[in-house]
Amino acid sequence: MFKFNITAKNNRARTGIFTTPHGNLITPVFAPVGTQATVKTLTPAQVRELGATLVLSNTYHLYLRPGDDVVSGLGGLHRFMRWPHPMLTDSGGFQVFSLAQTRQIDDEGVTFQSHIDGSTHRFTPQRAIRIQENLGADIIMAFDECSDPNDHAYSRLAMERTHRWAEICVKVKRRGDQALFGIVQGGVQADLRAESARFIASLDTPGIAIGGLSVGETKEEMHQTLDVVTPLLPENKPRYLMGVGTPEDLINGVARGIDIFDCVLPTRLARHHSAFAPEGRLNLMNATFARDEGPIDATCDCYTCKTFTRAYIRHLIVAKELLAGTLLSIHNLRALIRLMEQIGTYIAEGSFESRIPDLLKQWHGNAERSKEATE
Amino acid sequence: MFKFNITAKNNRARTGIFTTPHGNLITPVFAPVGTQATVKTLTPAQVRELGATLVLSNTYHLYLRPGDDVVSGLGGLHRFMRWPHPMLTDSGGFQVFSLAQTRQIDDEGVTFQSHIDGSTHRFTPQRAIRIQENLGADIIMAFDECSDPNDHAYSRLAMERTHRWAEICVKVKRRGDQALFGIVQGGVQADLRAESARFIASLDTPGIAIGGLSVGETKEEMHQTLDVVTPLLPENKPRYLMGVGTPEDLINGVARGIDIFDCVLPTRLARHHSAFAPEGRLNLMNATFARDEGPIDATCDCYTCKTFTRAYIRHLIVAKELLAGTLLSIHNLRALIRLMEQIGTYIAEGSFESRIPDLLKQWHGNAERSKEATE
Repeated sequence: MFKFNITAKNNRARTGIFTTPHGNLITPVFAPVGTQATVKTLTPAQVRELGATLVLSNTYHLYLRPGDDVVSGLGGLHRFMRWPHPMLTDSGGFQVFSLAQTRQIDDEGVTFQSHIDGSTHRFTPQRAIRIQENLGADIIMAFDECSDPNDHAYSRLAMERTHRWAEICVKVKRRGDQALFGIVQGGVQADLRAESARFIASLDTPGIAIGGLSVGETKEEMHQTLDVVTPLLPENKPRYLMGVGTPEDLINGVARGIDIFDCVLPTRLARHHSAFAPEGRLNLMNATFARDEGPIDATCDCYTCKTFTRAYIRHLIVAKELLAGTLLSIHNLRALIRLMEQIGTYIAEGSFESRIPDLLKQWHGNAERSKEATE
Repeated sequence: MFKFNITAKNNRARTGIFTTPHGNLITPVFAPVGTQATVKTLTPAQVRELGATLVLSNTYHLYLRPGDDVVSGLGGLHRFMRWPHPMLTDSGGFQVFSLAQTRQIDDEGVTFQSHIDGSTHRFTPQRAIRIQENLGADIIMAFDECSDPNDHAYSRLAMERTHRWAEICVKVKRRGDQALFGIVQGGVQADLRAESARFIASLDTPGIAIGGLSVGETKEEMHQTLDVVTPLLPENKPRYLMGVGTPEDLINGVARGIDIFDCVLPTRLARHHSAFAPEGRLNLMNATFARDEGPIDATCDCYTCKTFTRAYIRHLIVAKELLAGTLLSIHNLRALIRLMEQIGTYIAEGSFESRIPDLLKQWHGNAERSKEATE
């Protein structure tokens, strides 16, 4: 179980197959986010139909609601949300650290208040693993601490805690049908990232995640960090760049040896009426689309683009009909999954490296506004 | 076109086939409501999958937004919302008259203010037909006036206007591919209903609607009114009971010779977390369902019941995930459509009449709270 076979390489980019208890995962792969055990506005049938193979869900949210014991009692997350394919849960670390006002970190864990009712809770590495074992995803994450990426002293402290916690997670993990990934931290400090990559690699987990990116650093800092980290990671293990990202980030990430991505961007953009499109991101509420008979993207093969006009989607948005969010989510998710499928084909053909400039140019209009749109 | 062939009869109940330009409609039939050119929260693929054959949309809403000219320019309503099956539009009469505070009725039509922006508009019989011709549904409605059902004097006035307007609608209608239905009015006054039934029947429209019911009268008054009206209508034309209703109403309506029904109840209940179920209507937000591994209705064949537990649906509701509304809409619509399919089978077998008491008993728990839940 959890074998990773690399099937093709283009310089640092690679395609592979990661074997999980719920099926083989072909990489590179983009995972839709189902924070609360649902990819927002979509049925699992729709998520599958748009080509998703891996879905991420959030430990913090499911621990609070409905409770990991409830999910466990109902047969685990796959069964609970009826996604019988590969799943991944984060460790809750990122969400808890995001509660900046209400959490207290110490060497053993984090005490925090629920965003739902203010009640007090505590996560430790042990607890994060127990919760993830209750949830039962195929890929689970070590409990980590995300730092302000430009603060060297804090980044070292957080990295060292992340390393100690990763060792604990490896030690306390019990289920054999879950792949625990260690997480590389270290902000945007090259020395820390190198140290962290070497340390996490030494734990010999079945895969390795890179955390603490896409949290406010520049694109160049992200690329430089990946350039430090991935060459120090073992070849034969999947690498997961957490919470990333835009189409541009996916292209640049694969080029730097990343295999797995996840991001809320496609579904969040959908809720803000925005769609990925060849001419750059579109806001479908715009009056220019009122009589537009074309699909969002004439080259797209998703249900939305094969079926509906921009005019109809704009009508749904203006009329505040929830179907708009469903149709835009389908398209935006399919756009990123299709991009990953294309990249995989290019790698297999050996043409990915030479196509990067064209791919970046093609997606440029969608990438440049990413900051503003995710905030 | 628009032939209606009765295929079986049980006393006054009947099954039939109504031929439309977008396919044959098997009756009795329950039509989901797609007020703004979308059955709320569902894709047309989902609406079709749950067995819907006829969808209703609203002239008033589509006239205001996106505008019937826009819909016409985009190829008509079937094409706009991608529902290539039979469609029905109301005349806008009921919605306009519901704007009690802001509308003024005269003998030629109604002047009203938009609920969206307060702008002033006017509907006349001529205008209602032109808008419906722009929308292009297979079945369209004469412009009518709905009265306070217990006010005899007003009911006569409204009925007489409805009759004059129906004559105008028949005269000004141009498209041959749309079936115009006249509407019987007359409140709950037996003498007026009989007069109206005879008058509307005399117009020889391809189908006849019964309006002004389910607007506050008692169930007994509704039944008595149907008992007056349907025996006076021609056998060989479909009868449409507008805006009705609950499972109980459908059973009682078919028993009194009704062929077509529509109601927002299934999708509205879904938005209020409620589901039709054998043990009576369920509010899925209830904590008793937190660990309930059963489906909403073990006898139901819908996607929701075949796939998800009550516990999962409750989680979605509590977590405010929109998928809850989608899943409940699928189930509630399927429940009424399946009821109609069952009734059709019973009529074909000749057993419907004898099964009515059992059917009413079976659905009793779902019917009794209808008032409270639709308000």
